[in-house]
Amino acid sequence: MADRPEPARAARTAVLGPNQYGKAETRVLKVTRDGAVHHVRDLNVSVALSGDMDEAHYSGSNAHVLPTDTAKNTVYAFAREHGIDSPEAFAVRLARHFTDSREAIRRARVRVEEYAWERIDVSSPARHSFARRGRETRVAQVTRDGEGFEVLGGLTDLVVMNTTDSEFRGYAKDAYTTLQEDGDRILATEVSARWRYGWTGAAGAEPPAWDASYEQAVRHLLTAFADTYSHSLQQTLYAMGARVVEHRPEIEEIRFSLPNKHHFRVDLESFGLTNDAADGAVYFAADRPYGLIEATVLRPGADARIPDDTTTR
Amino acid sequence: MADRPEPARAARTAVLGPNQYGKAETRVLKVTRDGAVHHVRDLNVSVALSGDMDEAHYSGSNAHVLPTDTAKNTVYAFAREHGIDSPEAFAVRLARHFTDSREAIRRARVRVEEYAWERIDVSSPARHSFARRGRETRVAQVTRDGEGFEVLGGLTDLVVMNTTDSEFRGYAKDAYTTLQEDGDRILATEVSARWRYGWTGAAGAEPPAWDASYEQAVRHLLTAFADTYSHSLQQTLYAMGARVVEHRPEIEEIRFSLPNKHHFRVDLESFGLTNDAADGAVYFAADRPYGLIEATVLRPGADARIPDDTTTR
Amino acid sequence: MADRPEPARAARTAVLGPNQYGKAETRVLKVTRDGAVHHVRDLNVSVALSGDMDEAHYSGSNAHVLPTDTAKNTVYAFAREHGIDSPEAFAVRLARHFTDSREAIRRARVRVEEYAWERIDVSSPARHSFARRGRETRVAQVTRDGEGFEVLGGLTDLVVMNTTDSEFRGYAKDAYTTLQEDGDRILATEVSARWRYGWTGAAGAEPPAWDASYEQAVRHLLTAFADTYSHSLQQTLYAMGARVVEHRPEIEEIRFSLPNKHHFRVDLESFGLTNDAADGAVYFAADRPYGLIEATVLRPGADARIPDDTTTR
Amino acid sequence: MADRPEPARAARTAVLGPNQYGKAETRVLKVTRDGAVHHVRDLNVSVALSGDMDEAHYSGSNAHVLPTDTAKNTVYAFAREHGIDSPEAFAVRLARHFTDSREAIRRARVRVEEYAWERIDVSSPARHSFARRGRETRVAQVTRDGEGFEVLGGLTDLVVMNTTDSEFRGYAKDAYTTLQEDGDRILATEVSARWRYGWTGAAGAEPPAWDASYEQAVRHLLTAFADTYSHSLQQTLYAMGARVVEHRPEIEEIRFSLPNKHHFRVDLESFGLTNDAADGAVYFAADRPYGLIEATVLRPGADARIPDDTTTR
Repeated sequence: MADRPEPARAARTAVLGPNQYGKAETRVLKVTRDGAVHHVRDLNVSVALSGDMDEAHYSGSNAHVLPTDTAKNTVYAFAREHGIDSPEAFAVRLARHFTDSREAIRRARVRVEEYAWERIDVSSPARHSFARRGRETRVAQVTRDGEGFEVLGGLTDLVVMNTTDSEFRGYAKDAYTTLQEDGDRILATEVSARWRYGWTGAAGAEPPAWDASYEQAVRHLLTAFADTYSHSLQQTLYAMGARVVEHRPEIEEIRFSLPNKHHFRVDLESFGLTNDAADGAVYFAADRPYGLIEATVLRPGADARIPDDTTTR
Repeated sequence: MADRPEPARAARTAVLGPNQYGKAETRVLKVTRDGAVHHVRDLNVSVALSGDMDEAHYSGSNAHVLPTDTAKNTVYAFAREHGIDSPEAFAVRLARHFTDSREAIRRARVRVEEYAWERIDVSSPARHSFARRGRETRVAQVTRDGEGFEVLGGLTDLVVMNTTDSEFRGYAKDAYTTLQEDGDRILATEVSARWRYGWTGAAGAEPPAWDASYEQAVRHLLTAFADTYSHSLQQTLYAMGARVVEHRPEIEEIRFSLPNKHHFRVDLESFGLTNDAADGAVYFAADRPYGLIEATVLRPGADARIPDDTTTR
Repeated sequence: MADRPEPARAARTAVLGPNQYGKAETRVLKVTRDGAVHHVRDLNVSVALSGDMDEAHYSGSNAHVLPTDTAKNTVYAFAREHGIDSPEAFAVRLARHFTDSREAIRRARVRVEEYAWERIDVSSPARHSFARRGRETRVAQVTRDGEGFEVLGGLTDLVVMNTTDSEFRGYAKDAYTTLQEDGDRILATEVSARWRYGWTGAAGAEPPAWDASYEQAVRHLLTAFADTYSHSLQQTLYAMGARVVEHRPEIEEIRFSLPNKHHFRVDLESFGLTNDAADGAVYFAADRPYGLIEATVLRPGADARIPDDTTTR
Repeated sequence: MADRPEPARAARTAVLGPNQYGKAETRVLKVTRDGAVHHVRDLNVSVALSGDMDEAHYSGSNAHVLPTDTAKNTVYAFAREHGIDSPEAFAVRLARHFTDSREAIRRARVRVEEYAWERIDVSSPARHSFARRGRETRVAQVTRDGEGFEVLGGLTDLVVMNTTDSEFRGYAKDAYTTLQEDGDRILATEVSARWRYGWTGAAGAEPPAWDASYEQAVRHLLTAFADTYSHSLQQTLYAMGARVVEHRPEIEEIRFSLPNKHHFRVDLESFGLTNDAADGAVYFAADRPYGLIEATVLRPGADARIPDDTTTR
């Protein structure tokens, strides 16, 4: 490094702004054996660290740079030492470790995806066979900045559909509007949601029961999706969010990204066929373009802190 | 066309070989209403036709070319007129139609993917809310060539795992072998399978109950995967295939493509940690490269007719 | 709607936060004919609108909801009426239209991807044959909020590699560090970048020459990538950003997301083979996990306004 | 193994059919240094072996099973020992090695994908900076069965488009035909091709210059695509294949899979706009469904040996 003099700071024509670095997508499977009954947790862990990293960028000094390879090793070692109770608890432990262990690291963000496995039904008492469930992917994000934690739970890839009780009418029209009103349409979407927990790691505050909270949040949003007579995907989104916030006091806000997975009723008139919804219709499932509805629903008084693109990543 | 003279056949320096054309990936959803209880079948249908198509290629004459757009329309119209009983029955109907309706079309191959939906549990008696199941994708392929049918059932994307009862030892070694033997490893794979039915549409022959046959075939291959103490993925593959062939007389052969989804036990010794399988280990789920095991299992006396790449598409 | 009374606002147990909606991924190709010489612009356009949308969410009133289908129609009609000069100019035009035309719409964000085509070399003077270039994807994002515009340019999917002049040494170490220092490694990444233009649509301010600016920004970041002797990907990132900011006065800040596409030198010692970098080595191109380096580089005095996840979408 | 008696062969209710196994997707980058000028070859190599593997499936004996991990090691060691002259030559060398080295292995099939890199233009004489080209992916497949070789070259992902000189008229019509004839449409496709070389490794027969042959084959098929006034994608396919076969004596047959990447002219009449092709039209680039045209073109007298699904994998 000696022969690469750092430009005097005054002379800089460009300066460093917000930055973070880390190891993304460390895939870790933890098996726990309870005699012949095995349990698994299957995670994809992404760690992002920030802090005193100016010189790494300006002069190429790596003195403060803990290698991303070390973040990977830490994920594996922690899975073995402490097990994986839940994505949220595991991410809290990792985020605390990184910010506590090195002065140069002031902020850690840990993102986790969890893949669910269900047991394959067998007659023997052994329980070590699994099929990947494949419905939604559970996600969590824990950020530690200074002392406090921010914990997001959530999910992606949950495709849901109502085959009736959905209409779209009475909308605004302009010179480019050709859409026909529809009193009985299919409503389908692929739910991506992130919810923020009130827990911030304050002394004496008990963390939520993360797994139970996840299950109940999913149950509530599915129930609201199914039970709501929908005038629009916006209205359904609000109903889903409101039901979660109302029933889960540990959750302060929830943000959704809901692509409208359009199913268009096919026009079969040319072939002498009707195709009415009431009668059991045939639909074309379209790929692109698609409507995309995004919104946050909050407990009154809570702050909206989940940024825009968090749910569309 | 008049001003584009066809080269005399004798002069041809290149000739047409095997060919087919059609519409791929027509996405059709059929809803059936039984009062407030709705049922759905959600398919992706690909039609490939062949026959007397030489002039289409040589001179650009489209006289024998039924547009692919027409194949798409036919899929939608048939779904409305006849409903969708099962992927196999729907594909049989389409293949028969194309080969019967036009002399120039001598062979039709219809491939179908089916996406499964499960009901969202609600308290109301209405039943029109669904979540896409997301585990495996069911596939079917029906080929009609002349009078007979060939029907393949199958599936893709079924990820399964045994967390013990798998070893890999006693293998051949050469100068490039560094792999260590393992007496207790994870066995995980993503099952892609195609099975061929004995039914060929012969007069008087009753077709199988397609949906029931599919469910039972999946049940048997899963059971064999779970119950087999595995010395290799090859052995497990054979056990899965044999069990299907033994229990399902309507199935003549089954071909698998089984990628070995490697889960490597992480070496944690540097951190003063053991990581034994018996003790509940931590694994790295690798992406690439991966072992890939492919084989057909047959009823004795049956012909192996499912080609190589059918299961790796 | 009459029979669905809106809950009194006071009684709400959940409230609406930030929200937007629109049509995503409208795929539009515009051909321009200049005699026998054709030109193409091939875009993927995503429109997101926000404003007075509370009732759409709370009560299902669609009175203020311009259908997303209308946004799609507008994209097509504008492409025909006004042509597509550049992704940025087209997005500016659309964003202005949506916010100017309806009082309820206060903010419009238009995201564009552009796919580049190169001409197929032929001997004839006709120029209507193209091959999709496939290197990077150009992106743009225009936001209009009130009167001002914010314009981001950028790109994704640009994979680059230096086969030497890269080292990683002198880094911090802790109990979980096992990585060996490397004085001659491969540095490869897939560049995702977004840069913010100073232009905000103020009266009298001439917009940049968008296409030329894009080309030059790409040229500068590529040159900096190639010319920098790298002590880390962080340092290379800064060099890339600084060069763009220094040479392009129209650009205020640039944010990168740079995954470290690890190429590990294979250990071939067991086979009696050396594998030194200096000697022409063999590398394993790894998929996951990967280091991920993200940072903003700014013109001194400029604000860092490009959020975190913009570059990792 | 002792305690797992093999069922007597006579008793078998299911038998093993065609099978192969190996390591898929070994990602290898080879750098060659010629002073400060570096060259790279970047491959994805998949090896599939077959032979005397019955017992591996029936009884779980691995005595004849060379681990797939060894195939991976061999790829890396050969890249270092022998370099990578071309995908075809490298695959020939590997296939020969596997079949020659072990009696139990009777057939080896090696599939290779190659990713092209172009140099980043810099002013310095150093030449070690590259950008991944990203247009097409080159592919090769070498099979050795007994003594002879079969070599396929080819490519995938090559997206091409003609913005005029394409029509579709005079086609067959049935009750489900609604398509309108079009005298000036866009013709776009994503070329997947595999061609078979006449070279089989016979004594004294010189192999083709693989890299030059690849480049010329691509040039010819692109030229034919661009120069053909198209009455259908079938006709264009034949023209592309015929031109390759006519100009490249080393190539016996070529098979294409050409999805019709539909670009539909948008109907803008409702907005008072024309949208004629002659005038510079706006098109909607559709995703699904799509026409799919597959055919082989042969040198007269050659056999058609490339199977169906080879080009659609």
